[in-house]
Amino acid sequence: MANFLDTTPEPPYTAVIFTSIKRGDNMDGYADMIDDMMLLAKSQDGFLGFETVGEASGRAITISYWRDHEAARAFKGVDQHIAAQRLGRQKWYSAYATRIATVDKQYGYDSERN
Amino acid sequence: MANFLDTTPEPPYTAVIFTSIKRGDNMDGYADMIDDMMLLAKSQDGFLGFETVGEASGRAITISYWRDHEAARAFKGVDQHIAAQRLGRQKWYSAYATRIATVDKQYGYDSERN
Repeated sequence: MANFLDTTPEPPYTAVIFTSIKRGDNMDGYADMIDDMMLLAKSQDGFLGFETVGEASGRAITISYWRDHEAARAFKGVDQHIAAQRLGRQKWYSAYATRIATVDKQYGYDSERN
Repeated sequence: MANFLDTTPEPPYTAVIFTSIKRGDNMDGYADMIDDMMLLAKSQDGFLGFETVGEASGRAITISYWRDHEAARAFKGVDQHIAAQRLGRQKWYSAYATRIATVDKQYGYDSERN
């Protein structure tokens, strides 16, 4: 099994931590939007990787990794992403938080390697 | 509904991003360990908050927030936590990664406030 660290280089790099709670009453289009945003992110300069975990309860954490804050900021401003952010507030999310962070250090464990 | 940002002050502060995949074959004691570690973290100097999301598939992301890297490092070295880390490698996790990051900026949305 691949270690998560395969997706990121040696620090420092940027992590965008997106924690969210879905409303759950009308999620039409949500799954497609997530797929579109993952493809869009992958096509951006400076994109390093992506991890997302969601619960049936509607709570989710999504983290995207970028070369630097500038690359993360550029993705925030892409037209298709701006439209998705607007729909997120209008339709899908009850609440969310975004944190822009600098990863200073990383270490890991993989049972098939260690 | 409380916004996630209620748990953290103005940046900068420290985020410890822990991404993991459980083995799933013998998870005896896992849930108790998680509860114990959350209580232990809350009792530590410099602890700011905690978010965790897990999927039935075994993938999980847990983020703990701390006043600074020093407070996060101190928690890593608490005896009870060291024992839990050892059990994690021996019994529960197929793979994990830990990233120590400095949160530089944050913003959020709450449908009941905005």
